[in-house]
Amino acid sequence: MPSVPNVKLNNGKEMPLVGFGLWKVNNDTCADTVYNAIKVGYRLFDGACDYGNEKESGEGVARAIKDGLVKREELFIVSKLWNSFHDKEQVKPICKKQLADWGVDYFDLYVIHFPIALKYVDPKVRYPPSWQDADGKITPSKAPIQDTYAAMEELYDDGLIKAIGISNFNGALILDLERYCKHVPQALQIEHHPYLVQKDLVELCKSRGIAVTAYSSFGPQSFVELDMASAKSTELLFDNKTVKEIAEKHKKSPAQVLLRWATQREVAVIPKSNNKDRLAANLDVSRYPS
Amino acid sequence: MPSVPNVKLNNGKEMPLVGFGLWKVNNDTCADTVYNAIKVGYRLFDGACDYGNEKESGEGVARAIKDGLVKREELFIVSKLWNSFHDKEQVKPICKKQLADWGVDYFDLYVIHFPIALKYVDPKVRYPPSWQDADGKITPSKAPIQDTYAAMEELYDDGLIKAIGISNFNGALILDLERYCKHVPQALQIEHHPYLVQKDLVELCKSRGIAVTAYSSFGPQSFVELDMASAKSTELLFDNKTVKEIAEKHKKSPAQVLLRWATQREVAVIPKSNNKDRLAANLDVSRYPS
Repeated sequence: MPSVPNVKLNNGKEMPLVGFGLWKVNNDTCADTVYNAIKVGYRLFDGACDYGNEKESGEGVARAIKDGLVKREELFIVSKLWNSFHDKEQVKPICKKQLADWGVDYFDLYVIHFPIALKYVDPKVRYPPSWQDADGKITPSKAPIQDTYAAMEELYDDGLIKAIGISNFNGALILDLERYCKHVPQALQIEHHPYLVQKDLVELCKSRGIAVTAYSSFGPQSFVELDMASAKSTELLFDNKTVKEIAEKHKKSPAQVLLRWATQREVAVIPKSNNKDRLAANLDVSRYPS
Repeated sequence: MPSVPNVKLNNGKEMPLVGFGLWKVNNDTCADTVYNAIKVGYRLFDGACDYGNEKESGEGVARAIKDGLVKREELFIVSKLWNSFHDKEQVKPICKKQLADWGVDYFDLYVIHFPIALKYVDPKVRYPPSWQDADGKITPSKAPIQDTYAAMEELYDDGLIKAIGISNFNGALILDLERYCKHVPQALQIEHHPYLVQKDLVELCKSRGIAVTAYSSFGPQSFVELDMASAKSTELLFDNKTVKEIAEKHKKSPAQVLLRWATQREVAVIPKSNNKDRLAANLDVSRYPS
């Protein structure tokens, strides 16, 4: 099984260009999904507190390691700090809880999920907490990104995380962050597809050695499942004439064309699929000769 | 002469809804322009270190006060902190120099011109310094916005400035700023015209009591003079069919329509003109019955 190409991060660590996204993977099938994805060749798993399936993902990983499919050091496990844990004293405890959920002792990449700070919710009260506080209201926290980022750097210096990521940050926030950070982040995760190209932001990151990972590579598709009106009223990229023409010409699926479009721009992708064939097809996009 | 309506800022201070913008006002005519603008009824003058005409603007103000046209407390003088003075120890010295240039002992509003920090340039070496450092290169400074903003708050607490402004900040920066600031800013200045409506940002500011001032209310027009290709290849708003139709219908000029479009959204405007009639016409836009 040929391996997926890696992107070299600015701290020397390597990150697979294609991974498996755990957003919206159901709890009951998650462990098997992760196990099968490893079997097919996936090495990067993109999880998050907010996805509510870190324990099950960890079960899939543990079983794959136990069965000798893969070693821990061959995997690249990504998790994310949720908004309600931005207060600097909350960062390490929640990261440790997430590590325990996964059953690993370090994350390959740990990401600030949003540049949004919400009031702390005790994991004993509700976990994952989602956007609401314990009283069901959306309540901001006063934690500036600078404080949260410093706490992320402490995790990095302590070896609990091997790379620092940010997500849903724009260029202005990155320019401010690089003025106060000790370690430039290794990765940025953003919505990225042919309807949202983010050219300037991708270029800014390249100039800083920040690897970019795309989420929602299939565009509106991700949000149709969430019943969002704007997604439902937008033509799906799978149905887009240009995407379909390219797919037919190269005898690939529209999904493969969309993923390949990103990886050719050196943007990593993290599709998910519950279908075994599509799982393999998605992984395959980085392997064609360029 | 009927007065221009004011916007009430979140600290109780009042700011005129229409002012005079000093960007690109030539040094040789600046003092007379300011004097005449006061005569016509302008009370807000929007200056900046970077415009390179603060001494001349101050001369116009001084003459108008001497001739009894206006009192200092009836004026609303705006100035801006340039990018190369973001290091916290540079903020007060340069503000004091700018006050001395204007010949006043406080600014009604002092604005962080850009969320961009550049290497300090000694005013004795080059003033205004523009984007380049003493060696002609664009060199960033490590001053985070949080540090610069804290220095602005010190000016405010010392009474050197009566309101704190930010300019060219986006929503994400404002959300971060409000987490670390002591005083929420009173005003945001942004590019704003029918080609760049900035609806979400304007609404965010309203929800925080941050007054919004538009620059480049006439759109590409401001940048044609700077010989920018994108401005030259875009239809001027003065020539836009919709703008022209509205102007004809209401027997106003396209410029008046564009300014009125902003003030009806409670966005303040700061047009400039070297023509006496247009100066009066621009001021007039906030006076029609709404």
